[in-house]
Amino acid sequence: MKAAWIEGGRVEIRRTPAPRRRRGEALIRVECAGICNTDLELLRGYYDFRGIPGHEFTGVVVEGSPRWQGRRVVGEINLACGSCAWCGRSMRRHCPKRKVLGIRGHAGALAEFITLPEENLHAAPGGLGPRELVFCEPLAAACEILDQVKIPRGARAAVLGDGKLGLLIAQVLQQAGSRVSLIGRHGERRGWIERRGIRFHPADEAPRTRFPFVVEATGSAAGLEEALRLCEPRGTVILKSTVHGKVELDSAKVVVDELVLIGSRCGRFEPALRLLEQRQVDVGPMIDSEFPLDRVAQAFERAAAPGALKVLVWCSAPDAPAASSARSHARRS
Amino acid sequence: MKAAWIEGGRVEIRRTPAPRRRRGEALIRVECAGICNTDLELLRGYYDFRGIPGHEFTGVVVEGSPRWQGRRVVGEINLACGSCAWCGRSMRRHCPKRKVLGIRGHAGALAEFITLPEENLHAAPGGLGPRELVFCEPLAAACEILDQVKIPRGARAAVLGDGKLGLLIAQVLQQAGSRVSLIGRHGERRGWIERRGIRFHPADEAPRTRFPFVVEATGSAAGLEEALRLCEPRGTVILKSTVHGKVELDSAKVVVDELVLIGSRCGRFEPALRLLEQRQVDVGPMIDSEFPLDRVAQAFERAAAPGALKVLVWCSAPDAPAASSARSHARRS
Repeated sequence: MKAAWIEGGRVEIRRTPAPRRRRGEALIRVECAGICNTDLELLRGYYDFRGIPGHEFTGVVVEGSPRWQGRRVVGEINLACGSCAWCGRSMRRHCPKRKVLGIRGHAGALAEFITLPEENLHAAPGGLGPRELVFCEPLAAACEILDQVKIPRGARAAVLGDGKLGLLIAQVLQQAGSRVSLIGRHGERRGWIERRGIRFHPADEAPRTRFPFVVEATGSAAGLEEALRLCEPRGTVILKSTVHGKVELDSAKVVVDELVLIGSRCGRFEPALRLLEQRQVDVGPMIDSEFPLDRVAQAFERAAAPGALKVLVWCSAPDAPAASSARSHARRS
Repeated sequence: MKAAWIEGGRVEIRRTPAPRRRRGEALIRVECAGICNTDLELLRGYYDFRGIPGHEFTGVVVEGSPRWQGRRVVGEINLACGSCAWCGRSMRRHCPKRKVLGIRGHAGALAEFITLPEENLHAAPGGLGPRELVFCEPLAAACEILDQVKIPRGARAAVLGDGKLGLLIAQVLQQAGSRVSLIGRHGERRGWIERRGIRFHPADEAPRTRFPFVVEATGSAAGLEEALRLCEPRGTVILKSTVHGKVELDSAKVVVDELVLIGSRCGRFEPALRLLEQRQVDVGPMIDSEFPLDRVAQAFERAAAPGALKVLVWCSAPDAPAASSARSHARRS
């Protein structure tokens, strides 16, 4: 099969054997995959990664048990061992032996085919196409906040960063009843954001008031300091950016103001699928551009460009556009 | 009156006018005061402090309303404005206009007399002497953890740091039903700590297992990293050290392991007084040495020595020892 391959700071298309499913796994033909900041970090060599990246996808089961055969699916990315104490405590996403699709120990979705345990799969609700389903994984990560933090309806929340994840988080919190202020650098996104009922603040005119809830989703080391500045005493800062290396923390402020900092990673797919199905989150404006798998190097290049939103890669779908650059340019104009 | 005075990196005894109580305040003759790490930081010039330090004390009301007149008291250290939104939400300890006894805007307790709002006062329970009551303020700070974090009975908790605060926290958590491991550098404290039912681990033989609850009370910038290392996924790290300046944070670990970091400062006095009264916390072994107010410079010097525990300063008490060094040496031998 064809697959994207990251090695030595480069990404290219390689021909590799299609993966073979093990007991309990399904073989999935990937229709569409998204490029995430983690993929860009893999390319930059942060995690000694070598192999096929990609963990945001939708596809069709081509080999599996009768329940799944032929179904369009999305899939959770953590492959737990199933037998350790963490798995026993229903904390499979924190299994210390876990493999992670396209990140650790399990070949990823920027390929024609992947395998995944069937227990990781979720059937795609009817009416949702690949361009929506591919957002399920990052949207689940956004929804994870609601599983971790009790945010009262009507509470003010600031989301720092109007990139891919920040835009999803702002919408999720707004849907959950928060009064959301999104602080970002991309004034061109103001229009559709504010139509969703979210206030937009340019980063250089950040609000002077402080917030009981602040989400750090800038993807930058500087974001944490600004998040602390925006958080009121006894407030909660949710950390979503996995910044490589150490960041500076004003720990005295955390202690004096008795702040709560919560790290937040992957989430359950169920609430994300529900939001997509009920059209409560708008992902259309978040598609930056689309590429066929053969042009994955350009797709990564575009994804790494400043201000780029979600770059989609069509891996094997019959409806993959032959050349996406026209679409991409149209969206950016 | 005589008072300790910090200015320009020095602490000395000065004669200053006794403070005059305002409406709602009591005038208190200070019997005994403790020296805390914050006082040492004031002396080092970290907060541009100039004036009378001291916020751990017990004393007797010499001028006040009939309810308080003549009573031995301890007192909460935050003087809230009483009229802002924070005070209205019962978060007086976070009032942005607050003054803090001996730290910010209100003369401290290393003096013969102080004033405090009567609403800050708590009557000393009978049977407790100054050497126990003076621990009420730091013990309340230790108890604050239980107001912030729900720790199930029987849960394993690690306390990093066997200094003044760490020793109180370890005892408080142990009393609350946790299985506490204290990780410290002072093996000579092992005996009485383990008699309290607390496991002691030398810092260079820290436990290999991870903990669902970790309290960082080392007072050092390096403590946070070790606390994160010791904390299991979805665990909680309670930050008690107010380290001056920035510390390094591995934010990716916080995110990937979905850790919760909670800053923790002052606490309510009620649970602390109850623990002291019921002899559920042993503060006797935590007294390092005692000095009369006239020798406050030596008291600070001793408090700053590596491994020093609580240094008490007798400010005006009739039972103040004439010369405390003998007692001090006896304790250290």
